[in-house]
Amino acid sequence: MDTRSLQHAKGATGRPEGAVPHELLSGGGAGLREPAADAAPTTAPASLDGKLLRFLLQSLGDPPVRVSLWNGETWAPPTGEPTAHVRIGNRASLLKLLADPEFQFGECYSDGSVEVEGNLVRLLETLIRALSQADSTQPRRRILERFRRRRSNAATDSRSNISHHYDLGNAFYELWLDKQLSYTCAYFPAPKITLEAAQIAKMDHVCRKLRLQPGERVVEAGCGWGALALHMATRYGVRVKAFNISREQLAYAKERARAIGAEGRVEFIEDDYRNIQGRFDAFVSVGMLEHVGHENYAALGQLIDRVLEPDGRGLLHSIGHLRPDPLNAWIEKRIFPGAYPPTLREMLEVLEPCRFSVLDVENLRLHYALTLEHWLKRFEAARGRVREMYDERFVRAWRFYLSSSQAAFGAGEMQLFQVLFARGRTNQVPWTRAHLYERQA
Amino acid sequence: MDTRSLQHAKGATGRPEGAVPHELLSGGGAGLREPAADAAPTTAPASLDGKLLRFLLQSLGDPPVRVSLWNGETWAPPTGEPTAHVRIGNRASLLKLLADPEFQFGECYSDGSVEVEGNLVRLLETLIRALSQADSTQPRRRILERFRRRRSNAATDSRSNISHHYDLGNAFYELWLDKQLSYTCAYFPAPKITLEAAQIAKMDHVCRKLRLQPGERVVEAGCGWGALALHMATRYGVRVKAFNISREQLAYAKERARAIGAEGRVEFIEDDYRNIQGRFDAFVSVGMLEHVGHENYAALGQLIDRVLEPDGRGLLHSIGHLRPDPLNAWIEKRIFPGAYPPTLREMLEVLEPCRFSVLDVENLRLHYALTLEHWLKRFEAARGRVREMYDERFVRAWRFYLSSSQAAFGAGEMQLFQVLFARGRTNQVPWTRAHLYERQA
Repeated sequence: MDTRSLQHAKGATGRPEGAVPHELLSGGGAGLREPAADAAPTTAPASLDGKLLRFLLQSLGDPPVRVSLWNGETWAPPTGEPTAHVRIGNRASLLKLLADPEFQFGECYSDGSVEVEGNLVRLLETLIRALSQADSTQPRRRILERFRRRRSNAATDSRSNISHHYDLGNAFYELWLDKQLSYTCAYFPAPKITLEAAQIAKMDHVCRKLRLQPGERVVEAGCGWGALALHMATRYGVRVKAFNISREQLAYAKERARAIGAEGRVEFIEDDYRNIQGRFDAFVSVGMLEHVGHENYAALGQLIDRVLEPDGRGLLHSIGHLRPDPLNAWIEKRIFPGAYPPTLREMLEVLEPCRFSVLDVENLRLHYALTLEHWLKRFEAARGRVREMYDERFVRAWRFYLSSSQAAFGAGEMQLFQVLFARGRTNQVPWTRAHLYERQA
Repeated sequence: MDTRSLQHAKGATGRPEGAVPHELLSGGGAGLREPAADAAPTTAPASLDGKLLRFLLQSLGDPPVRVSLWNGETWAPPTGEPTAHVRIGNRASLLKLLADPEFQFGECYSDGSVEVEGNLVRLLETLIRALSQADSTQPRRRILERFRRRRSNAATDSRSNISHHYDLGNAFYELWLDKQLSYTCAYFPAPKITLEAAQIAKMDHVCRKLRLQPGERVVEAGCGWGALALHMATRYGVRVKAFNISREQLAYAKERARAIGAEGRVEFIEDDYRNIQGRFDAFVSVGMLEHVGHENYAALGQLIDRVLEPDGRGLLHSIGHLRPDPLNAWIEKRIFPGAYPPTLREMLEVLEPCRFSVLDVENLRLHYALTLEHWLKRFEAARGRVREMYDERFVRAWRFYLSSSQAAFGAGEMQLFQVLFARGRTNQVPWTRAHLYERQA
């Protein structure tokens, strides 16, 4: 039974001056109810806009949020403090949200026609948790999904997909990432350490899982700005070939390799991972599988099979989902074209056909929520500079992207899987995982 | 190119008196070769039996073993020491091996018509490794598989499947398992610790992964002789309901609970896991999924979803395969009717439909090889007693089962996966896995 109330408020304070409980559009014969005896004084019935808002909130699983319309009508949960206050600025935005909330919330927030008072991350986490319990939205999502144009990851499309995001300009990412520009989930042995320390701990965690030995050859598929490749070469004494199709990132990585005198040990190659050649003791890919596309997983497995030595080890680090589901439509369109977060089961479609043996899987989703919290804080501190470089809409879009990502990892909508593997036949595998947790000298 | 030789030996020494290189039944136009110039004196061509043996070995991927027939003909690898010496006692056994080596090697070894000189485990590991590289056997395996009658795991069949193995008599298992009768993979923090210590370490490893807290309620599906249930209750202060359909095992477990005064905290229930009722903080199943049957995975997931509290944790511990493949036909028929080792991807079919979040996967296959090495050693020490209780064929069958299992885990044919999970929405999950590796007080 519905126990919330649609409140009609005059003025812009956002505080309701009265409350009219209603049940709209309910399935089982219930209709408009008269105001309850304990309702606040104002008894004006909700407008059509108010009824549409009510319908929208029901379809989103009745999240505990306060929502105001441009005409002053306000909906608030009847009990408890609302998580945040959302202001919808015009009828067009309300209709867009009704048609496709998953995509349009990001759009309307970016263009300012939807405003949020209160903590945006908390609001988005509330919405995600309410929505994940409202299974009724699934059929509608499936229909909408059929009409969306998702981007492919054929080799030519991958270049433009990757360029869209990673070639925004190194100066932009330098404003809010850590000093080495690690743009993937950090690892916080203790939650209180700094982002810089956590990104270094993540790289060490990966290298220790791979048990890198001096002199070994490592190939990295999708190397970002080169932080991991340089870390492996300088701290673990391995020789690295690192592949990336983002020109901006590679230019930065090569410059850094020169600056620290590591050119002889790390080769940065501007090419698609599909063109990796050679034989390696370790294959590592941190944050690239999301951009590979599910349809290319079997081919990726064959590639790893081709380049890995008999006793080689591999590690795939990727965001993921609990159930097969496309990436949030707004993020896929505006931020990460062509990206797809696989389930762990789907990730294994890379490895199983070639008989790779999974040694270790670790889920670091709460570490990604914390990483995003750091990024968002730094981003907000630099938002004036970002506005100068781009515009207010860009600032709002990136705030929405970082906030919704933090919310999604915090609410369990998104996962982060590190999958360590070796060939099925090799016994050159760690006896236990205790070495990952020994203090380093 | 084939470089091995079929040797004709007189007498029972097993040492060849001569060698005749041959290539038989080769695919690419090559036929019988004349004896090579450097061959040993004896030049008698192989008999039809010898040719059939040669064909058998080729179809098995030419393992480096010496094989003698009843008529004295001996095949030996041309270079290097053979892993072991196999003696085939009669033509009927050779023909059986030709028809279905996967099933008949166990049969013939059990009835004594095939004898092995040397290390049986090493021989079987050699055979497994050779076979896994000989893809040519796959089409034939698929055809044979179509005619095999595998056992179902409908609830009624499960009872007889489980009784077949686990109701052999507790006295039998007491001869070679650890004191608490843990009949699943142990965990050896260091390889040199005793089996007793490793089985306790395994139980602690499981309890720590589940982060059991005093007063919590735990359900165990498939509890064997009750070691883990009693360990959880007495060492971690939880209340346990433990399900099993093996009458012999449960009688033992109940008696032990009485003996140590744990009846109030552990309830042993003789019933199918499908009938678990109630709500629990943790669900644990160690070595039961193998007996559930792939067709019942979705239903198992729904059961866990039904009984687990919102912040509950679960752990599935199961043997597994790298690729979807039935259990070795002989073991399925003679030892474990209805058993099926899933791939890790298949295990996730239990969890993904209900949106469980996998937190941690660990592969302990080398620990299972070591566990089996301990069991086999104890079994051999007690074989006189086993022969008295059953007969020589039973001794040989169990030796073959334990040896081939050790070989399969050692060669990477079999895996052991521990999968820890929680609901997707709970954040009551460990921050890192470091607590698993801290020294216990």
